[in-house]
Amino acid sequence: MELRINLTEQSYPIYIGRGVLGRLGEEIKKIYSNKKIAVVTDENVDKFYGEKVKSTLEKSGFQVFKIVVKPGEKSKSIEELVNLYNNILDAEITRGDLIIALGGGVVGDLTGFAASTLLRGIPYIQIPTSLLAQIDSSIGGKVAVDLPRGKNLVGNFYHPQAVFIDPDVLDTLDKRFFYDGMAEVIKYGCIKNKELFYKLMECDEKRILESIEDIIYTCCCIKKEVVEKDEKDNHDRMILNFGHTLGHAIEKYYNFEKYTHGEAVALGMYIITKKSEEMNLTKKGTAELIGEVLSKHNLEHEIYLEDRESILKAISFDKKSKGEFIDIILLKDIGESFIHKIEKEKISSFI
Amino acid sequence: MELRINLTEQSYPIYIGRGVLGRLGEEIKKIYSNKKIAVVTDENVDKFYGEKVKSTLEKSGFQVFKIVVKPGEKSKSIEELVNLYNNILDAEITRGDLIIALGGGVVGDLTGFAASTLLRGIPYIQIPTSLLAQIDSSIGGKVAVDLPRGKNLVGNFYHPQAVFIDPDVLDTLDKRFFYDGMAEVIKYGCIKNKELFYKLMECDEKRILESIEDIIYTCCCIKKEVVEKDEKDNHDRMILNFGHTLGHAIEKYYNFEKYTHGEAVALGMYIITKKSEEMNLTKKGTAELIGEVLSKHNLEHEIYLEDRESILKAISFDKKSKGEFIDIILLKDIGESFIHKIEKEKISSFI
Repeated sequence: MELRINLTEQSYPIYIGRGVLGRLGEEIKKIYSNKKIAVVTDENVDKFYGEKVKSTLEKSGFQVFKIVVKPGEKSKSIEELVNLYNNILDAEITRGDLIIALGGGVVGDLTGFAASTLLRGIPYIQIPTSLLAQIDSSIGGKVAVDLPRGKNLVGNFYHPQAVFIDPDVLDTLDKRFFYDGMAEVIKYGCIKNKELFYKLMECDEKRILESIEDIIYTCCCIKKEVVEKDEKDNHDRMILNFGHTLGHAIEKYYNFEKYTHGEAVALGMYIITKKSEEMNLTKKGTAELIGEVLSKHNLEHEIYLEDRESILKAISFDKKSKGEFIDIILLKDIGESFIHKIEKEKISSFI
Repeated sequence: MELRINLTEQSYPIYIGRGVLGRLGEEIKKIYSNKKIAVVTDENVDKFYGEKVKSTLEKSGFQVFKIVVKPGEKSKSIEELVNLYNNILDAEITRGDLIIALGGGVVGDLTGFAASTLLRGIPYIQIPTSLLAQIDSSIGGKVAVDLPRGKNLVGNFYHPQAVFIDPDVLDTLDKRFFYDGMAEVIKYGCIKNKELFYKLMECDEKRILESIEDIIYTCCCIKKEVVEKDEKDNHDRMILNFGHTLGHAIEKYYNFEKYTHGEAVALGMYIITKKSEEMNLTKKGTAELIGEVLSKHNLEHEIYLEDRESILKAISFDKKSKGEFIDIILLKDIGESFIHKIEKEKISSFI
C-alpha cells in the first residue's frame, strides 16, 4: 500500500507492507543515488533488525554506517543530540548523503531533528518500528529533542524523503508498547473516524493484529489529510493533539517514567472528555465510550491527580499555548473534534 | 528605503534608514499585536543600544525581557544556545510572542537558530548592528550555531518577520569590524556588480560612510535576488560563498581568533582568484584588481599558508561539499561569477 504526503515545497511517499524491510535496498536505490548511508537506531531495535537492514542496504551497493543510541526518552537530550551530530560527522556524511532513522518515536524524533539541523539539513528516511511511530510520529515532519524542563521543546518541521512501514516488525514489539500505540489509534477514531472507533470497540487484540496493515493505512490517511491542510501546526493540525495537553503534563510530572506517551494520552483523552461532557460541550456518554475502548486495549483511563498544581503549571508551558490563550482539543461526539480556545487561567476547569 | 524578500511560503520587509532604531516601537506595533518581546543582544551592543531599544519598545506598550550574551563567536556554542533557550523560556515566551535579535552576526545567528527551534519556531525580527550583519547575515534566513569541529555546522533556514537596518549604529562599530563588513561588500561587487566594485575602488572610507545607506541597499538587493532564486542553498545561492570555502577553513585553522570572518573571506577571494586565473578560468588581472580594492579598505590579501594539509582537511568538511564533490565559486571577470564543481581531491590545486 502506498500513500503520498503532498506539501507546498515537497511531496513524499509512505510505503506500508509486510516484509518491506527485506526489500529496503532495492527500494532506496530507486530514490537515492549516492553511496553513503548513516543508519541511526537504538539498542533494542538493533538487536532484532540492525544487521538485517545493514546487510540489505550493503547488498544494494550502499556504504552503511550504523549508529546505535540508548533506548528511551533520555536519548532525546541535548547531550545525546550532540553525540549523534559527532557520530554522523565522523562518518563524513554530507548534504548529498542519506540518514535513516530505524526505530520508534525516540529514534525518529532525535534522528529527524539531527538531520534537519546538521549542515542545515541532510535528507533522511523514516523506518518506524513501533506502532506509535508507524501511525503517528514518523509522518508529518515534526522532529524534536527535549530540554530538562519539557518534552519536544526544541524541534523543527522537516519531512523525510520517504517512510517505510513494515507491520511485521510489530511481532517483536513489547506488548506494553503495542498498547501504547493503540492509544493513538483510538485517538484517530475519536477525532476523525467513527467507523474506526467502533471497529476498535469490537475487535480483540488477535483481530486487530490480523488487520493491522489496514489499521495503519487508515491512521496514516487521517494524519496525511490533517498535515496537508496545516503543515506548520497553526490550526487544523492541533486536533491531532486530542488528549495530549493533559497527557504531556502527566508524562512530565512523572518524569517520563511511570506512563508511556500513549498511556498518558489515554488518560488525557478520557479526563478532558469527561470534563467537556460536564460542561455540555460534548455529547453525553462519550467519555464512557472512550473509557470502554481504552480498557478493551489494556489502557487505563482513570487516575487520581496527586499534584494538580504542578500539572497545571506544566500545561501553561505547552507549545500549544499562544500568549494568554491555550487551544485545547475536544470532541463534539466520537469522530468529531474541534479546537476550543480558552484563557490560560481557565485550564483548571478542564482537569 | 524598503525592500521585500519574496519566498514561496513567506514574504518579509527590510527597512533601511538612519534613525530607524528610535522609531522601533511604532514600527513593530504595525506588524506584531501581542505584548511580550524578548530582546537578545550582546554586552557590547547592550552598552550602546540595549536600554534605548528596550525603552522605545516599552513606550509602545510592549513588555520587554532583555537577554544579554557574551560577545564573540564562542557564544554560538551549544552550551550558550541551551542557556538562551532557558532564558527565553524563563521569560515565558510562547509561539505567539516575539524575539528580537539586536546585534551582529553572532547574535543574529544564535538568536535566529534558537527562535527557529524553540517550540518548533517562534517569530523573530533581526536588527543587525554590524555592517556584515546589515548586508549579509541578517537577510536570507540562514541561522546557525557552531560545533567544536566547525562553524555553522548546526543550523536552519528560518526567516525573520522583518529586518530593521539603522546605518547610524555603525558610528559605534569598531573600525576593524567595519572593514570586516567591507570585505563582504567587495564580494558583492565581485560576484554580481561591476559598478559597485569600481565605486569601492574609487571611494575612500569617508566617502563610503557618506553613501553607506545606498551601499547597504545595493548589497541587500543583490542578496534578495540570489536568495529568492534559491532559498535553500541548492545551487544559485552558493555564489554568495565566493571566497568562503577557503575563508572558513582559514578562520577555523586559526581557531576563529586571528582573522575575522571578513578578513578570512578577503584572503579567500584573492587566493582562489589568483589560482583560477592561472588555470585560465578567470580573466587575467582580476586577482590584482581584487587585491587593490582590498588594500584600499584595509584588508590583507596575501598570506603564507603554514599548514596547507589542515586547511585542506577543513575544506572537505565544508557544508558545500556533496558526496565526492565540492562546489567552489569562481569569477569569470569582476561582476561575473560561476559555480565550479570539482572532485574533492582536486581542491588542493586551488590553494
